[in-house]
Amino acid sequence: MKAAFMAEMKAENIKQFLYNFTQLPHLAGTKENLHLAQQVQAEWKEFGLDSVQLVHYDVLLSYPDDTKPNYISVIDEHGNEIFNTSLSEPPPPGYEAVRDVVPPYSAFSAQGMPEGELVYVNYGRTEDFFKLEREMGINCTGKIVIARYGKIFRGNKVKNAELAGAKGIILYSDPADYCAPGVDPYPNGWNLPGGGAQRGNVLNLNGAGDPLTPGYPAKEYTYRLDKASGVGLPKIPVHPIGYHDAESLLRKVKMHIHSNNEIRRIYNVIGTIRGTVEPDRYVILGGHRDSWVFGGIDPQSGAAVVHEIVRSFGKLKRKGWRPRRTVIFASWDAEEFGLLGSTEWAEENAKVLQARGVAYINADSSIEGNYTLRVDCTPLMYRLVYSMTKEIPSPDEGFEGKSLYESWYKKNPSREYKDVPRINKLGSGNDFEVFFQRLGIASGRARYSKNLNVEKYSSYPVYHSVYETYEIVERFYDPTFKNHLTVAKVRGGLVFELANSVVLPFDCRDYASAVSNYAHIIYNLSRNHEEELATYNVSFDALFSAVKNFTEVAASFHERLQQIDINNLLAVRSLNDQLMFLERAFIDPLGLPGRPFYRHVIFAPSSHNKYAGESFPGIYDAMFDIESKADQHEAWEEVKRQISIAAFTVQAAAETLKEVA
Amino acid sequence: MKAAFMAEMKAENIKQFLYNFTQLPHLAGTKENLHLAQQVQAEWKEFGLDSVQLVHYDVLLSYPDDTKPNYISVIDEHGNEIFNTSLSEPPPPGYEAVRDVVPPYSAFSAQGMPEGELVYVNYGRTEDFFKLEREMGINCTGKIVIARYGKIFRGNKVKNAELAGAKGIILYSDPADYCAPGVDPYPNGWNLPGGGAQRGNVLNLNGAGDPLTPGYPAKEYTYRLDKASGVGLPKIPVHPIGYHDAESLLRKVKMHIHSNNEIRRIYNVIGTIRGTVEPDRYVILGGHRDSWVFGGIDPQSGAAVVHEIVRSFGKLKRKGWRPRRTVIFASWDAEEFGLLGSTEWAEENAKVLQARGVAYINADSSIEGNYTLRVDCTPLMYRLVYSMTKEIPSPDEGFEGKSLYESWYKKNPSREYKDVPRINKLGSGNDFEVFFQRLGIASGRARYSKNLNVEKYSSYPVYHSVYETYEIVERFYDPTFKNHLTVAKVRGGLVFELANSVVLPFDCRDYASAVSNYAHIIYNLSRNHEEELATYNVSFDALFSAVKNFTEVAASFHERLQQIDINNLLAVRSLNDQLMFLERAFIDPLGLPGRPFYRHVIFAPSSHNKYAGESFPGIYDAMFDIESKADQHEAWEEVKRQISIAAFTVQAAAETLKEVA
Repeated sequence: MKAAFMAEMKAENIKQFLYNFTQLPHLAGTKENLHLAQQVQAEWKEFGLDSVQLVHYDVLLSYPDDTKPNYISVIDEHGNEIFNTSLSEPPPPGYEAVRDVVPPYSAFSAQGMPEGELVYVNYGRTEDFFKLEREMGINCTGKIVIARYGKIFRGNKVKNAELAGAKGIILYSDPADYCAPGVDPYPNGWNLPGGGAQRGNVLNLNGAGDPLTPGYPAKEYTYRLDKASGVGLPKIPVHPIGYHDAESLLRKVKMHIHSNNEIRRIYNVIGTIRGTVEPDRYVILGGHRDSWVFGGIDPQSGAAVVHEIVRSFGKLKRKGWRPRRTVIFASWDAEEFGLLGSTEWAEENAKVLQARGVAYINADSSIEGNYTLRVDCTPLMYRLVYSMTKEIPSPDEGFEGKSLYESWYKKNPSREYKDVPRINKLGSGNDFEVFFQRLGIASGRARYSKNLNVEKYSSYPVYHSVYETYEIVERFYDPTFKNHLTVAKVRGGLVFELANSVVLPFDCRDYASAVSNYAHIIYNLSRNHEEELATYNVSFDALFSAVKNFTEVAASFHERLQQIDINNLLAVRSLNDQLMFLERAFIDPLGLPGRPFYRHVIFAPSSHNKYAGESFPGIYDAMFDIESKADQHEAWEEVKRQISIAAFTVQAAAETLKEVA
Repeated sequence: MKAAFMAEMKAENIKQFLYNFTQLPHLAGTKENLHLAQQVQAEWKEFGLDSVQLVHYDVLLSYPDDTKPNYISVIDEHGNEIFNTSLSEPPPPGYEAVRDVVPPYSAFSAQGMPEGELVYVNYGRTEDFFKLEREMGINCTGKIVIARYGKIFRGNKVKNAELAGAKGIILYSDPADYCAPGVDPYPNGWNLPGGGAQRGNVLNLNGAGDPLTPGYPAKEYTYRLDKASGVGLPKIPVHPIGYHDAESLLRKVKMHIHSNNEIRRIYNVIGTIRGTVEPDRYVILGGHRDSWVFGGIDPQSGAAVVHEIVRSFGKLKRKGWRPRRTVIFASWDAEEFGLLGSTEWAEENAKVLQARGVAYINADSSIEGNYTLRVDCTPLMYRLVYSMTKEIPSPDEGFEGKSLYESWYKKNPSREYKDVPRINKLGSGNDFEVFFQRLGIASGRARYSKNLNVEKYSSYPVYHSVYETYEIVERFYDPTFKNHLTVAKVRGGLVFELANSVVLPFDCRDYASAVSNYAHIIYNLSRNHEEELATYNVSFDALFSAVKNFTEVAASFHERLQQIDINNLLAVRSLNDQLMFLERAFIDPLGLPGRPFYRHVIFAPSSHNKYAGESFPGIYDAMFDIESKADQHEAWEEVKRQISIAAFTVQAAAETLKEVA
């Protein structure tokens, strides 16, 4: 049935769906996005799912004030405003008459009209502020800082600016980061026009979901913090501008920020195909539906692919087929406002998901380039991804008749492992976060990407601007939608295999290799402090010992798995449960220090860049910039504590793979 | 096979085991208790278990200083010591030559020699201190307080004294609480002699286990807090005395406390019989082995029963039988020092236990009286306990030919439910704590008890004194060991049914009734504050709505369960998983406020008495003494937040019982 499923998916359908999803803005919390939810619900039902529900939450969102626009002024020595930044982006051709395009803004910015001296802080990274403060002696206290977009999640820039004492932060798109050389600005090319700007939320939620209901679903009955006490809200005004406006900013500026935080209702669409043999095991495919404006790439290039995957599953089901396990399809709302739809749903269903969740496959933008595949996933899925991509034809020029695996490997080989394509660690910034980082459900994501080695712009130039249209995809990124179709086959194929294999297609030996690799990386990092390691008696022996045990136990487990009697239903179920619960074993209910909702001991979103994954984050964070800590004894004691937690967790995970009883 | 199993257990064996276990002191952390562990290990192997392991941890324990005894002096106005309390208890006849009887002390007391005015604080309960401070205007700051034992866990008394500002606390056994009327002191009767005193730990661990490794097992590799930062250690000196010494204490006293906290190795014995059909489902029978001195009642009257249960299971196994699920037998160490052996083991195995733990049956003292059965358990087990006890003959005089259920019901009918015997909520103070309160594994305990309606002494008179000998059991409590045998049949029968029933013998409808009952209780309590409920807009509607949903879903689940095809292995497994994970669904990883290791939302040890169970503890604690809180708005907001958490959790538990997918 897998071949039938794969063959059923068509590029032309994805194209039609993308067109259909991108004609209007679908900002979370607006009626347009509710209407799209209802449309998706109706169509998924039509496709043949067993059930499709709208599931709502009432969460804190943020919008510009209709009557008081946000902007930045340049002021002269008398305080006169001698230049104002633009209030909106010039609309893309064909979209001039569209109403309700939200102007560029930083969602959840504090309100305020600070004025002051402007300090350039490069990307606003931790190291940028270190350089300013420690090497250049520049103090940001009481200043307004301007950071260019790129490299790290914008929320981290805002947090860093706050910590540096800034009273406001301007974010701008620099051509160096948002224009590819030799490419025209939209509509003649796919570069960001000078009048375009990047919207985005500037929260530091650390996995909390709705800022007012951390840890619990934002339902009618749920207690809400007061708005001022919400988790992760910035304390200073923030505003994004384009490069034309950025060029005009002079030494002294004034910000005018009037956006409001308000509680609004959001809607997830949740569709289900019930499994035959193990209906109580769930494989989830989820991606968001809300967009800042038209969402031509983010998220509808992903949502269109999900739509086609649902349609293909529905087609098979109509022919009488069902998967072994239950498949859940999710169209998340309010991802752009802090992964809210997915997080609230996972909070509401946490107990069921912990007991039954086999895997989560994420489906945001299918493309951010057209060079090759890009995959981030749990080590449990490495081999599945490799074997799957060997069966999918490459869409790339020059790889006719070759597999996706071949072009992917050729274009982006792994740095860590021999003879395989590169797979990255999961970080965050997308809807898999709560499933992986909080609940410990094996997760993965895949999209088509640029050549990261040579294309130095950040994400893709028109990211989160009004220029993310259907046309930019159709004209420049993927005219035949072959890359979309390839991504559909990867995402859909993963879901199919995870839902339908008798034995779960997870390989615990790869987790052992990965953990071993990460242990060596963190140990090598520690050796920058040889003297302190000796002084404070810091040893990684326990961690390496646990890794060794895990490696041996994983090998034995795998051998037992080879010898399993596939007809012994309970024996298969039992081994599958061990595989399913392995990812769960890395979850520490106490969470990482100061980040109670990041509970995975092996992986976390980097504390310095939410988008990136950090391995052994507890140890990493304890050692970060440790030389500047006032109490060195205390600082190294914390390193030792974190090594101990890591060693325990790896050992405990090993125990879960041993022969039961 | 159950009949054979039940018939195999003999009173005479239990008696022999008790004798054997009580000839020497078995204080945790001593070589005598290691030797007993090795003996238990050898005998369990001999009985036929599949495997029996010694599992060690290095935990913080506390012992008197061999060279500087602990005592209390009465001092005159010049500071001269004019009376000293005794340094040890007069030994019971026949035990005069036994070495290494630890003198009465309060384990984990702070060291110190405070002197000062003595204030009597009754039982040292929260309400006792309220009365002193609020009604009588007595300030304990800088005073030494003396509290009588009884009513609540001694650690709570110490905590209350600290909060009141006392600089030391003396605990004494009052004849009103430790002597039954008309009964002689030991050895002529079972009352506490005037020279006897109650040992015990005075920690406030709140479920943390080893004070130096909260949340993680105390293994060689584990990071340890420094001793001064241990969890739950009292900050003031504490010492226990008998009623003879108590009579001599005058207004001004001086404490001399020199006990030391030290890290020592403890040993659990873990035995296993592998299940045939579902080896990856665990039913655990555990009780502690360490005793303050001879442990005639606590714990060996329980350990002897466990021994006989193990022997009977072993006997069946030798005949070729195995249970459907895996049975794990545990002999815990260092229960007396804060439930350390069980908690460390559960911490080490938390991930496996969460995924596979079906039930935990606790087995401390089998007797604390000889009147009738006493059971505390999860509502899931109510019906199992009732049906089991209907099959066991009553050992009580006047109930010849009647069932245990009948005598139990006659002697102690339920207050809440019609026509059934009373079953109590689980609190803590015993080894089930980590399994139930932290991990959410369905738990229960059973012992023979006194007539709580008329026998007003606390626990049993010689509790934790040197007079807990084999002879006190054999002469006074249970000469024929028929009550021990009855408890063996209850505990063993529960384990047998839980391990062997095809469908788990849990009834979720009883959980619904219990939760409904608790919701009404907490709501009625709130109505003492009608005005504030209105002012602050506090509503229990969401909780009642969730309880209603839970009740309906539980009824539907039960109906589905009746219709199950018992030959459909995976369908049975799936429903059993729903039953198994129901208790887990009440666990909130965020824990109760300030008590991160008490995570069960429906039950917790009372914040005012660790021994007692509190229902909806989050709401209860938020409302406790709320009228005295400075910020009423903030206090009632917290009540609302806790109601919301309770409503969410009950609703989430309901979701786990719905038909899957």
